[in-house]
Amino acid sequence: MVSQRASQPGGAEHRLLELGIDLTPAPTPFGAYVESVQTGNLLYLSGMLPAVGHEPKFVGRLGKEFDVEQGREAAHIATLNVLSTVRKHLGSLDKVTKVVKLAVYLATEGDFRAHPKVADAASELLRDVFGADKLPVRIVLGVASLPLGMPVELEVVLEVKG
Amino acid sequence: MVSQRASQPGGAEHRLLELGIDLTPAPTPFGAYVESVQTGNLLYLSGMLPAVGHEPKFVGRLGKEFDVEQGREAAHIATLNVLSTVRKHLGSLDKVTKVVKLAVYLATEGDFRAHPKVADAASELLRDVFGADKLPVRIVLGVASLPLGMPVELEVVLEVKG
Amino acid sequence: MVSQRASQPGGAEHRLLELGIDLTPAPTPFGAYVESVQTGNLLYLSGMLPAVGHEPKFVGRLGKEFDVEQGREAAHIATLNVLSTVRKHLGSLDKVTKVVKLAVYLATEGDFRAHPKVADAASELLRDVFGADKLPVRIVLGVASLPLGMPVELEVVLEVKG
Repeated sequence: MVSQRASQPGGAEHRLLELGIDLTPAPTPFGAYVESVQTGNLLYLSGMLPAVGHEPKFVGRLGKEFDVEQGREAAHIATLNVLSTVRKHLGSLDKVTKVVKLAVYLATEGDFRAHPKVADAASELLRDVFGADKLPVRIVLGVASLPLGMPVELEVVLEVKG
Repeated sequence: MVSQRASQPGGAEHRLLELGIDLTPAPTPFGAYVESVQTGNLLYLSGMLPAVGHEPKFVGRLGKEFDVEQGREAAHIATLNVLSTVRKHLGSLDKVTKVVKLAVYLATEGDFRAHPKVADAASELLRDVFGADKLPVRIVLGVASLPLGMPVELEVVLEVKG
Repeated sequence: MVSQRASQPGGAEHRLLELGIDLTPAPTPFGAYVESVQTGNLLYLSGMLPAVGHEPKFVGRLGKEFDVEQGREAAHIATLNVLSTVRKHLGSLDKVTKVVKLAVYLATEGDFRAHPKVADAASELLRDVFGADKLPVRIVLGVASLPLGMPVELEVVLEVKG
């Protein structure tokens, strides 16, 4: 199945394989919403969290329970959920033509300053998979709290083929 | 007027009527912005609040002044403002082809965990009116504060006919 | 160069000239993202901050280190960065057909209430430059913290020609 997806050398599925990343199943909703909606050639995703299934992998806040490195790990897991959800919707990551927007929401104490370092963990994985020519704009906010007490949530909008 | 709108059995205006919901007038801006902007067939709305006119119906935070049930009530009122604004822009809710994105912003204490339950009040009303085949993606954030001290704000993007 | 840009009387470049505003260079990324991405005729921008270059002009929170007037000044500087970034991407502000969305994120203490007044500083400059017929929808949130401790961040989506 992987070999079929990885049909385009230099494509996103091929890069994912080279990175040795094996995606976990895409997340499923906690309520009356869906994980992805396509309108025209824009693909919107629900907020992606550092959870596997409905199981949070991190509960706590940056600058309190978690340091920058742990925040980066949480952002990495949330980004894997981005990738799983995109593949589930499109069949293949190779159908992504641009990552348009990445918003990184971090549950922080008020005096936390290292937002960009944590957000970079998500940005870098997206760049490694989709390529440096498909980098998104980025919004980064420190928020008071996130669903189920998780420290990171990602919002992603992509441009996709036809 | 209602009977004209409710021309499509199973359409959103018809469902609203069945739910016995009588919409209040659409909100008007607090500053130099507008309540809705259409670009192509995407309709963007301003942040919708639990206010009627410019009168906040709830002032306070979840996990402090308000519990989950009150938060759900506030989210319900904000969703009614979504519906009023969409109808005002389009003439009829039946012109909505998809609810693309719902973001639910909740003013919370840092240790609040029940975001999904409060957000569901907005999701469920949108589902009941537009149908389960038009569910949006969802972003949920706990924030430090919202305009005029209100506990809930909704951001909605919809796909509309031509 | 300015006279070339200001080819349309009543256009945005002409208004900017009339307002006596001389834009500073567009901001550059702090990480693995870009400042603007166009998809179809939508132009997305990265979060715009009250910084010149990578130098924050304000560090602190509204309702604590800064009052409403200082918040408005910070929002004004962030809006100048919006304008620089749009001009850099499009060549001329005159190619903007609509400002679709303005989100204003404010780092606040929990009891801050004057969000709309601060947000208006951004809204009013966009109106003065692009015209009252191109006003966006608006989302305003008080957040816990923003990158590098800055008090204001703006998110903007525009509709542009071709």
